[in-house]
Amino acid sequence: MAAMAEVVLACTSAAGVADKRSRDAKSSHRPTVLAFDVTGSLLNMAALAPFFERLFGDGSVVHEWFGQKVLYSETATLTGASTPFSDLSGGILRMLGAIHRVAVRPADVDELTELLSTLPAYPDVPPGLRRLKDAGFRLVTLTDSPGPVSSKAGPLANAGLADLFERQFAADSVRQHMPSRTTYQMVSQELNVSATSVCLVAAHVWNLIGAKSAGCLTALLARNGVAPLMLAGVPQPDVIGPDLTEVADALVRLNSP
Amino acid sequence: MAAMAEVVLACTSAAGVADKRSRDAKSSHRPTVLAFDVTGSLLNMAALAPFFERLFGDGSVVHEWFGQKVLYSETATLTGASTPFSDLSGGILRMLGAIHRVAVRPADVDELTELLSTLPAYPDVPPGLRRLKDAGFRLVTLTDSPGPVSSKAGPLANAGLADLFERQFAADSVRQHMPSRTTYQMVSQELNVSATSVCLVAAHVWNLIGAKSAGCLTALLARNGVAPLMLAGVPQPDVIGPDLTEVADALVRLNSP
Repeated sequence: MAAMAEVVLACTSAAGVADKRSRDAKSSHRPTVLAFDVTGSLLNMAALAPFFERLFGDGSVVHEWFGQKVLYSETATLTGASTPFSDLSGGILRMLGAIHRVAVRPADVDELTELLSTLPAYPDVPPGLRRLKDAGFRLVTLTDSPGPVSSKAGPLANAGLADLFERQFAADSVRQHMPSRTTYQMVSQELNVSATSVCLVAAHVWNLIGAKSAGCLTALLARNGVAPLMLAGVPQPDVIGPDLTEVADALVRLNSP
Repeated sequence: MAAMAEVVLACTSAAGVADKRSRDAKSSHRPTVLAFDVTGSLLNMAALAPFFERLFGDGSVVHEWFGQKVLYSETATLTGASTPFSDLSGGILRMLGAIHRVAVRPADVDELTELLSTLPAYPDVPPGLRRLKDAGFRLVTLTDSPGPVSSKAGPLANAGLADLFERQFAADSVRQHMPSRTTYQMVSQELNVSATSVCLVAAHVWNLIGAKSAGCLTALLARNGVAPLMLAGVPQPDVIGPDLTEVADALVRLNSP
């Protein structure tokens, strides 16, 4: 992770356009709103590994489960299916059970749902968020969770972080899943700011590609298990760092006079 | 695989609407065109395992690679990005290299490309295809490969199967990836038949969901590592079988007077 330890503003892109984008971001686009993805970005899915270890004999199946969940949420958006994201969690778990020849009981699905609502924050997250809030950024979240999210319940409240956020947006309310551009546009429209005033902060490259397509800035939390997709035609993040400590540094620097 | 060994027409769906759909399919919709997905459906990706074993020390990384390739091809369609599917193969390989801390050289990407164009057919595929052709079905393929596909070159020609197909369609020609409904509609429009005359045959559930959204019939090759996604709101296949031998049986039966 030596290369990642040094935060880069606008990582070197395969298309070689990063330097220009960096200057543009610095000169004309300064984010005022930071929209955070939650699961895997602020909250640590490693807490799910023991559950998958018990069920499948292999804790790394959590990655297969999450990858398939995203793949099928994208499928739902592309095909106009109405499956809520919360149902997908259990549906994909049962599908993986059938594939790996493991019995998945309703109690297992309930346990996964409970675990998802009580994921712990990464240790860098509470101080990183406070630093950004103190620096004057407006903080919101954007998730694929269905229905309204309150500051009194849900994963962020359980992790003691909900009070740091001005709003918690649910992509489900526009009947689309991330990375559909509609979901990111909802945030800027609801807050009555331009898309270029919003920076999505996430540990998922596909999520950042969607935010870019909506005109937002993006910051990649290149946590363990995350790497950029360096490919011509794929927009690269404006900021990359290994955790929120370094990404917060870069975002504060980006907005300094 | 005991339950799968018996082919079911319109598998039992979580939504409980399978029986009605089965009757509808039997009475009013008889496919005349069978559109086959290729990679993983007709051709066996297990041949890639030694490559991933050599590079990552774990042949099962092939599943992670393919899952991420589909996830990012869906992202490209959702966000209007123009990345060709062929470039994604190498881009995802390099991304996984960065994640797993494995050096991926240009020669590795070239080797993967070569392996993808020379995948062997599953043993059930040549006799299954001939049986369906003899039964009067029109056979075509639909892939995410970029550019035109000829009967003289490409993976199916290398596997000795190209001559069995009337046409080979590339989703890339409509600048979308499967499972965007536009890709399946292209097939029915180009062949000047109704969507309900086309049955997509594939080993990928997400692919069938897309074909359903375009109005096609679908048949799931529930090969090793494949299981239906049983979830309310998710359309279920009209035909399921463990391989093309059994799926061909079911398709011939579906079209018998």
